[in-house]
Amino acid sequence: MHDRLTIVKVGGKVVEEPDALSSFIKDFASIAGQKILVHGGGRSATAIANQLGIETKMVEGRRITDKSMLDVVVMVYGGLVNKNVVAQLQALNKQAVGLTGADLDLVRAVKRPVKDIDYGYAGDVTAVNTEHIEELIANGVVPVVAPLTHNGQGQLLNTNADTMAAELAKAFAKIYRVQLVYCFEKKGVLEDPSNDNSVITHLSYRLFDEYKQSGVINEGMIPKLDNGFSAIKHGVSEVFITNIDGLKTGFSTGTQLSFNE
Amino acid sequence: MHDRLTIVKVGGKVVEEPDALSSFIKDFASIAGQKILVHGGGRSATAIANQLGIETKMVEGRRITDKSMLDVVVMVYGGLVNKNVVAQLQALNKQAVGLTGADLDLVRAVKRPVKDIDYGYAGDVTAVNTEHIEELIANGVVPVVAPLTHNGQGQLLNTNADTMAAELAKAFAKIYRVQLVYCFEKKGVLEDPSNDNSVITHLSYRLFDEYKQSGVINEGMIPKLDNGFSAIKHGVSEVFITNIDGLKTGFSTGTQLSFNE
Repeated sequence: MHDRLTIVKVGGKVVEEPDALSSFIKDFASIAGQKILVHGGGRSATAIANQLGIETKMVEGRRITDKSMLDVVVMVYGGLVNKNVVAQLQALNKQAVGLTGADLDLVRAVKRPVKDIDYGYAGDVTAVNTEHIEELIANGVVPVVAPLTHNGQGQLLNTNADTMAAELAKAFAKIYRVQLVYCFEKKGVLEDPSNDNSVITHLSYRLFDEYKQSGVINEGMIPKLDNGFSAIKHGVSEVFITNIDGLKTGFSTGTQLSFNE
Repeated sequence: MHDRLTIVKVGGKVVEEPDALSSFIKDFASIAGQKILVHGGGRSATAIANQLGIETKMVEGRRITDKSMLDVVVMVYGGLVNKNVVAQLQALNKQAVGLTGADLDLVRAVKRPVKDIDYGYAGDVTAVNTEHIEELIANGVVPVVAPLTHNGQGQLLNTNADTMAAELAKAFAKIYRVQLVYCFEKKGVLEDPSNDNSVITHLSYRLFDEYKQSGVINEGMIPKLDNGFSAIKHGVSEVFITNIDGLKTGFSTGTQLSFNE
């Protein structure tokens, strides 16, 4: 039986509000056993970009990353957010290390090919290298991963944090029994977006397909769920979508995905 | 006999000009054996701060780090400079990991006490923890260290890169035969600042003291040399001050410090 590894992706408002983030970090730190944290930081990058006079362009929830926007996300995700999270984990006596996909050659990607839209320096993941990070995890270190990758030729790339978490989960599923947890501001996947208590406790792939077609599950959630189901398909044991409270209850208040009924 | 570890601190114009930095990284990568890179990035932080409308204040060559300037240096040193250097090392097939003092609890500091001047979030180093980094180095990984520290209570601090390199060198001198190399745009310590070829090949502590009093060695060089001599005093085997060309020649074109005559 493999050891358990919990990979938590935190994003949305939880990352943007300092108090919510500190509170999240405490709950994350108290999850038993080996773990990895993947963070986003979307709107903080937008705010800094604004201050620098750089316009933010989004298409279908994905950021168009030109050269100056790439510098901003490297500064904000790889620097500001990542290092503050690490310092806060250290304050809780959790040994942690902040990484991007370039560090330890952790996640390689290729610049997304231009079809209808030129996403600029957006990276589609091609490989995850667990070699050195495995040893760190085994020694009790918590990797804190920013959603940045590299192409192996010196170019950093911007990669969606949900995708980053799913790709790490798939790679570590060869070594660990992986739990992948998407933590954001909602309790879970909602049957009625206007009712925070309408959490879908178990979401099968068939139901997801139905909800997608009927429009119950909206655009913003679809990439996250695609990532989650892809993780299950590739050997990840459990995938949850939940909020901070869910971390305290073993994720039981959120949505659990299952590939079969 | 301990293994050799070469710690190179790169700063000044070498870090600010992309071509000079790429060229430096190639030469650094070709240094044989185990190594650590410590980088500055001073004027790039000043440029970004300007764009963000944050005023840069320096006293005796040291940056006054208020809350918004701290965010800038965390973004620029910990994110932009650090991650681009790591990506470039990966492109040369050098396994590398970018770190601040918060990562792996590498360097702790205290906020500098306010005497005549309030330096803000400036960190004076109190402890270096080599525990996890030793294993990475032994496995062929090159740590790339940004000049940021933490206080163990969740607060990041801004620490001078020359000091950071010297403190790392002292701590690793207990485990390795450490060479500490300060690499900047000048050939070495100059007897005549207006003559680039007036390199002082060997600088003893007595000579340094004389030069300081006579004003031959100017203000900008004194903290660097104080750090260098402090490193030798605390067990570091060799300290060199040189430029990129010096890296190619085993540092023989630069200045070597020695505590005795």
